[in-house]
Amino acid sequence: MKIQPITSAQNAVLKRIRGLHQRSAREKEGLFLIEGAKVLNEAFAKDLPIHDVVVSKSFWTEGLPQLAQDRVAQLHIVEDKMFKELTTTQTPCGVVAVGSSKHSSLEDCLKDCQTLMVVADAIQDPGNVGTLIRAALAFGATGMVLGKGSVDVYNPKVVRSAMGALFSLPIVVGMEAKAAITRLKAKGVRVLALEASAAKRVDSSDLTGAIAIVLGNEGGGLSPEVFLDADERISIPMSALVESLNVGVCGAIVLYQCALARGKNQ
Amino acid sequence: MKIQPITSAQNAVLKRIRGLHQRSAREKEGLFLIEGAKVLNEAFAKDLPIHDVVVSKSFWTEGLPQLAQDRVAQLHIVEDKMFKELTTTQTPCGVVAVGSSKHSSLEDCLKDCQTLMVVADAIQDPGNVGTLIRAALAFGATGMVLGKGSVDVYNPKVVRSAMGALFSLPIVVGMEAKAAITRLKAKGVRVLALEASAAKRVDSSDLTGAIAIVLGNEGGGLSPEVFLDADERISIPMSALVESLNVGVCGAIVLYQCALARGKNQ
Repeated sequence: MKIQPITSAQNAVLKRIRGLHQRSAREKEGLFLIEGAKVLNEAFAKDLPIHDVVVSKSFWTEGLPQLAQDRVAQLHIVEDKMFKELTTTQTPCGVVAVGSSKHSSLEDCLKDCQTLMVVADAIQDPGNVGTLIRAALAFGATGMVLGKGSVDVYNPKVVRSAMGALFSLPIVVGMEAKAAITRLKAKGVRVLALEASAAKRVDSSDLTGAIAIVLGNEGGGLSPEVFLDADERISIPMSALVESLNVGVCGAIVLYQCALARGKNQ
Repeated sequence: MKIQPITSAQNAVLKRIRGLHQRSAREKEGLFLIEGAKVLNEAFAKDLPIHDVVVSKSFWTEGLPQLAQDRVAQLHIVEDKMFKELTTTQTPCGVVAVGSSKHSSLEDCLKDCQTLMVVADAIQDPGNVGTLIRAALAFGATGMVLGKGSVDVYNPKVVRSAMGALFSLPIVVGMEAKAAITRLKAKGVRVLALEASAAKRVDSSDLTGAIAIVLGNEGGGLSPEVFLDADERISIPMSALVESLNVGVCGAIVLYQCALARGKNQ
């Protein structure tokens, strides 16, 4: 491991990292920010190409706790105050790195009758998207479409909340949910839209075979065209005392039910 | 509705509201902060005692959108800049109010064989606690213990994320999780602890009768004594590719499974 201190805030590496706080720079460069040893280790474990790794002086002095040091070729060290400008979190995470974005196609997500996809229609909260990515991987999903109008999949909060799952699950971006549904149906995938008002309960629906679960926006729910395009509309049975649960939680429950029905989660 | 503008930041009402951003003041006064028309309307609907209601000049000018005006006896109006100091959110919520905290006992949560409780053992993330409160109400839980070491149930972020569910579900605070478990067992409640390593799957566990689900801290999981005190330890079956799901999501899935087993969510 080659050690290289950086003392100027105008250093190109630091400028690049600060730039990656913005979606436009992430999309232009095809790079994104990884914060904290835990997520970085997961990225190493999945052989994601990692560029610059920068640690704070404190993190260095503490002996790089929990960092998979054998995977780091070159390490930059900066003063704590300068490090703070590199991160998007309140609490100091000690290490940040730059990773290469990965792009998946719809075909990467299809596994014949094993196909279990999530289609997110304009989901904007990064915490919800992170939850959905983790739950998708946990319950055997084969991929996800993060439809246009959704938060950037490489938003730093999505990266943190999805943890390593982001590096394992094929995720398709830049496609309209409606277009994804049309293509999935053409491939023989049955499309089920989650909608609170649907009469059909998720626990009495057929969740086997090639299916995609469509989830709507936090405030507005599914867009009408997506709602109508789905093969079936399903709901999670719940007490009328509660208006709704958040879309991350709803998606996780549906995926759990899918896993039970598909006998996958042994 | 009596209208009363406030022009001084030193006004007693505004000082009280700003004080309620702190847990110590909330506990001392037995009051808490309600932000936004949606949650405030839910508080009105549940007849929660509401003290001061303060709106921003903009919200007033827009005609108090979505606010249940017939429930407001007295309304304070302040300049937008001053209003911003009253809230804990980044996005302007237009209206804040002061509500009286409600305290429930363990007995309030017990409904004979219908009892379905959640015991949170030192859960610190307010979003997770909010999620658990909503999921508990959605899936027919009769109450919750928010054990010592957990976030304050009246933390503004818990209030926002739990939405109206906070005003409907009996929630016991200030009790150690271990003590709650001992008392619940003495009352004939079967105690099931959720633990990722448990061999017994939640979907093949008996979830009927009087039960309590114990959920552990985000980082550390269940404390060993709580783990040992439980009658059973259960887990959610999931792929080994994912280390864990967050405790709010896990709790919601277990509660959903309970509701299915208990035939309550028709």
